[in-house]
Amino acid sequence: MTRFAFSISATGGAARAGVIGMQRGEIRTPAFMPVGTAATVKAMRPEEVRASGADIILGNTYHLMLRPGAERIAKLGGLHKFMGWERPILTDSGGYQVMSLSELTKVTEEGVAFASHLDGSRHMLSPERSIEVQRLLGSDIVMQFDQLVPAAATRDQQREAMERSIRWGRRSREEFDRGGEHAERAAIFGIQQGALDEQLRKASAEGLIDVGFDGYAVGGLAVGEGQEAMLGCLDFAAGMLPADKPRYLMGVGKPDDIVEAVLRGIDMFDCVLPTRSGRTGQAFTAAGPLNMRNARFADDVEPIEPGCSCPACSTFSRAYVHHLVKSGEILGAMLMTQHNLWFYQRLMDGLREAIAGQRLHAFASEFLTKYRRAA
Amino acid sequence: MTRFAFSISATGGAARAGVIGMQRGEIRTPAFMPVGTAATVKAMRPEEVRASGADIILGNTYHLMLRPGAERIAKLGGLHKFMGWERPILTDSGGYQVMSLSELTKVTEEGVAFASHLDGSRHMLSPERSIEVQRLLGSDIVMQFDQLVPAAATRDQQREAMERSIRWGRRSREEFDRGGEHAERAAIFGIQQGALDEQLRKASAEGLIDVGFDGYAVGGLAVGEGQEAMLGCLDFAAGMLPADKPRYLMGVGKPDDIVEAVLRGIDMFDCVLPTRSGRTGQAFTAAGPLNMRNARFADDVEPIEPGCSCPACSTFSRAYVHHLVKSGEILGAMLMTQHNLWFYQRLMDGLREAIAGQRLHAFASEFLTKYRRAA
Repeated sequence: MTRFAFSISATGGAARAGVIGMQRGEIRTPAFMPVGTAATVKAMRPEEVRASGADIILGNTYHLMLRPGAERIAKLGGLHKFMGWERPILTDSGGYQVMSLSELTKVTEEGVAFASHLDGSRHMLSPERSIEVQRLLGSDIVMQFDQLVPAAATRDQQREAMERSIRWGRRSREEFDRGGEHAERAAIFGIQQGALDEQLRKASAEGLIDVGFDGYAVGGLAVGEGQEAMLGCLDFAAGMLPADKPRYLMGVGKPDDIVEAVLRGIDMFDCVLPTRSGRTGQAFTAAGPLNMRNARFADDVEPIEPGCSCPACSTFSRAYVHHLVKSGEILGAMLMTQHNLWFYQRLMDGLREAIAGQRLHAFASEFLTKYRRAA
Repeated sequence: MTRFAFSISATGGAARAGVIGMQRGEIRTPAFMPVGTAATVKAMRPEEVRASGADIILGNTYHLMLRPGAERIAKLGGLHKFMGWERPILTDSGGYQVMSLSELTKVTEEGVAFASHLDGSRHMLSPERSIEVQRLLGSDIVMQFDQLVPAAATRDQQREAMERSIRWGRRSREEFDRGGEHAERAAIFGIQQGALDEQLRKASAEGLIDVGFDGYAVGGLAVGEGQEAMLGCLDFAAGMLPADKPRYLMGVGKPDDIVEAVLRGIDMFDCVLPTRSGRTGQAFTAAGPLNMRNARFADDVEPIEPGCSCPACSTFSRAYVHHLVKSGEILGAMLMTQHNLWFYQRLMDGLREAIAGQRLHAFASEFLTKYRRAA
């Protein structure tokens, strides 16, 4: 049975449409991965996530190692069984959260020592421990452990973190390869760093390619640099990564970010935006985002997005969703999250079909014009 | 088509099993009605409520008239369409919430003037306005407007409130009958008051029967008097209400309360307990309630209740539910609420089948012994 096979069926400029074959199921690309931080895509049942069209979800190593604990999840049969999701799961390495969420963080060549944001307990994440945790979770796509530095870091700090991330990438790869049965069915991705600097991005890509991974992520973007800077970086960074492997833009993004990144050769995305926005009252639509708390929806008999075939839009009016959101009702978060995940997956459908039909640029142009006019 | 037909198919002592026929569907009795306070049974989709076995749900006049507003719901096509529930809905009269939630409350013979607990806006609830609101909502079973007094009230205060509730019951009935199309398809229930006093309960029942209703509720119980006092009151109060009409015990209760009340001739129940407990981590099981926050469930591979066929128990372990509840995840509230509603409906199934099979006392005795040993 295939461990990991990426086949590209169509291209359009730098963009590609394809399929990743894995033992737990196929992943159609370009793919959007809903985020299941704490072993749940918030406010959604697993079958509802699947019904939206998601082929793969993301789990967070940092959160899960702290609560309920990776060894516990392993003992309970792994993350898939624990949360009732049978298809592929990509787990991040914890590298991002350990820098953004934890306390008393200390970085050495060995790894990162930190205190849990939940209870202050002391932990260590190293390339070896990160891969071990991801193996205990039963991850299908494992991410190398990398070092993040703030966007405001100097170029020297960026270079040092990028170079360390290559060394940590090699240690991650070696630990992954020691994984026995897990290594025989899972895949591991490297993470390109180097901030917005073309030379650093190039050095990072070369170092990671020398190690050799199943796929490559573009890391260190979507951290406050703004869309223009991010896309400017992608213009050179994505093409540095092997054309025959999946390219994953971590933590991105808004619908228009995704369209722009696909145009630049990105195949995979994850972002909390559709789920988080679902809990704060923001609905994504092709005509731009809507704040469902707005009083103008109080008597609106239309669904959240007219024409949307999601279960929320098939049954309920904006007036009802507005009422639920205003009242702080859990069902409001459930319906909004559901709509948003459907919207993101329909966008990915549209991108894949447009690439296959050799009309990506027309599709992207039409989408971006309509979306940005409103947004 | 039948407006309202109550047929009793089996009895066992004071207990009865039957069916209420209405235009929007049949209600099997004894029936438990999940509470949909703000036009949603909290954390549940309507189809999930139905799948649990609920034939009817309850809506709150007080909450809905304040937010989103009864006239608004009417304009949007009524409560059923608004919230996506096609089967019968019973609406309370607002009499209870207006005394327990609102502020600056002033009671006169005309009705109750009050300030909204949401925004301090001034409102009036009278028998006529309560029935009008329930008609605007499109209620199937309308409750008369009644006056509640605190459990600590004197007997004279209790008598005055009971007598006023009869007068308000007559005004409610008259307003209901002026309802045209609505009166032709809906039903109206009276509410017996009189606290724990047998004479007051008798006078209340006689006054209401003189007005004439489709069903009769036992009101003013489950307000802190304790189970023993409540059941002692039911021993005489339930039998005062017509045997050929449904008897509804408002706001009750715990599983053992329900079993005891069915033994005393009650046919309908509503309570926030299964839904509210679902959001605070308490699971109902035949072996008593479980606090799913308890650390002993952290590694427990069993479902919430072994043998339960609800979707939550069919897929997820106690370890997972414990993790969700501890982490404050919305899915925890969703799964726990679902299990609890299934538990309540399975209890009603058991009671109906036991009455039909002439084995209610054995069923009740076995249930109560097992449930109370743990609780």
